[in-house]
Amino acid sequence: MAACNRQHGGFHMNKILVINGPNLNFLGIRETKVYGTESYNTLIQKIQKKAGELGLEAECWQSNHEGAIIDKLQEAYYDKSLIGVVINPGAYTHYSYAIHDALKSVFVTKVEVHISDIQSREAFRSISVTAPACDLQIYGHGLDGYLEAMEYIGKTAADAARK
Amino acid sequence: MAACNRQHGGFHMNKILVINGPNLNFLGIRETKVYGTESYNTLIQKIQKKAGELGLEAECWQSNHEGAIIDKLQEAYYDKSLIGVVINPGAYTHYSYAIHDALKSVFVTKVEVHISDIQSREAFRSISVTAPACDLQIYGHGLDGYLEAMEYIGKTAADAARK
Amino acid sequence: MAACNRQHGGFHMNKILVINGPNLNFLGIRETKVYGTESYNTLIQKIQKKAGELGLEAECWQSNHEGAIIDKLQEAYYDKSLIGVVINPGAYTHYSYAIHDALKSVFVTKVEVHISDIQSREAFRSISVTAPACDLQIYGHGLDGYLEAMEYIGKTAADAARK
Repeated sequence: MAACNRQHGGFHMNKILVINGPNLNFLGIRETKVYGTESYNTLIQKIQKKAGELGLEAECWQSNHEGAIIDKLQEAYYDKSLIGVVINPGAYTHYSYAIHDALKSVFVTKVEVHISDIQSREAFRSISVTAPACDLQIYGHGLDGYLEAMEYIGKTAADAARK
Repeated sequence: MAACNRQHGGFHMNKILVINGPNLNFLGIRETKVYGTESYNTLIQKIQKKAGELGLEAECWQSNHEGAIIDKLQEAYYDKSLIGVVINPGAYTHYSYAIHDALKSVFVTKVEVHISDIQSREAFRSISVTAPACDLQIYGHGLDGYLEAMEYIGKTAADAARK
Repeated sequence: MAACNRQHGGFHMNKILVINGPNLNFLGIRETKVYGTESYNTLIQKIQKKAGELGLEAECWQSNHEGAIIDKLQEAYYDKSLIGVVINPGAYTHYSYAIHDALKSVFVTKVEVHISDIQSREAFRSISVTAPACDLQIYGHGLDGYLEAMEYIGKTAADAARK
């Protein structure tokens, strides 16, 4: 896998950071008709399995705190092994210009993921203030959206390594 | 009191969680013309007195942190003694879709309370994004609004126990 | 310097609290075309130098957490040595009614500062929900805006001491 062989100052660049925002730790508990019955732990297992398939490492991290998500993105800035960020900012998607600004600090590939089809729900969910700071937005594909985001990041890194 | 005798898996269901959001610890300090001169401690005393009258237990909790309020609501989901949540989300009322989503996870009776008449103040205060996730909204009744919310929760639990 | 000699209940009133909100610790890292190449440490040095010139003390404090900023403002309420607050709420400027409310609790002179010209950028940045709780707003003057804010606070305190 090309992405694995890419190095940056002696670091293997093979890591994807997966950030889940508020209430996503309640997957499978909360509004199962919208978000499905699979739990947050199931999501993590799927992500780790996909990371293995892609020859990458995945760090899964969740917080209900907007400020903690910004702190984490700032840490990501300094992580030289990082090739991408997958972020589901939960409801912060719709108003956190602070997360938007933090995302703009991080120069790796960034994909925003939403489990549900945010375009077909309440009006407030159709607006993402964070997506403009990302390279791609995926929504409505269920948990698979995270895996598609990882594939996109892996492919982007592999393409960059080939150049 | 019927509510006291209700049980769920061996737990007495007799607890009300009262969540106060940002700046409500500054009751009696901040903008006393709007919020009155009675302090947050006075509010807690009134709530505890009312809980005693209703034969219920009240847990009073305050935070300025949106994420901490979400954490607390998620803890409430697991609290089998809980019959209701009284929440005054302070200014988060007007934009925290993340608290809205967290409230939707908790299935007990939920009442949103505002001390002042939020409909007769600045335009931004007339919109509540959290109320749609609650069973009832009470505003403009001063500190008594909390006590009315507790009565409503007590009555709802007693009605449910009778069925 | 008159401001230094002013006392309140035995306390020297000579302190300015400088609060920087989300992402401002990434000054010089993040979007240098907008915010310049000078770092947050350089900003602190400039503020401390200016404080010395004004015969005042400056406390510089930064957080990415909205709730922590509110906690800090509430601490400021109790700080009897304080003559003013300089605050750059970062992106919270545009939606944090909770910080607005916290600012209204603090009765010293308050100046909101933005490094960039927030009126000539994205539409969302032209709205400040926090400025109405401040005495003055300064934007588009780069890091110097903080120093101008300090001068304004020093002058206001000196004027008050003279009365």
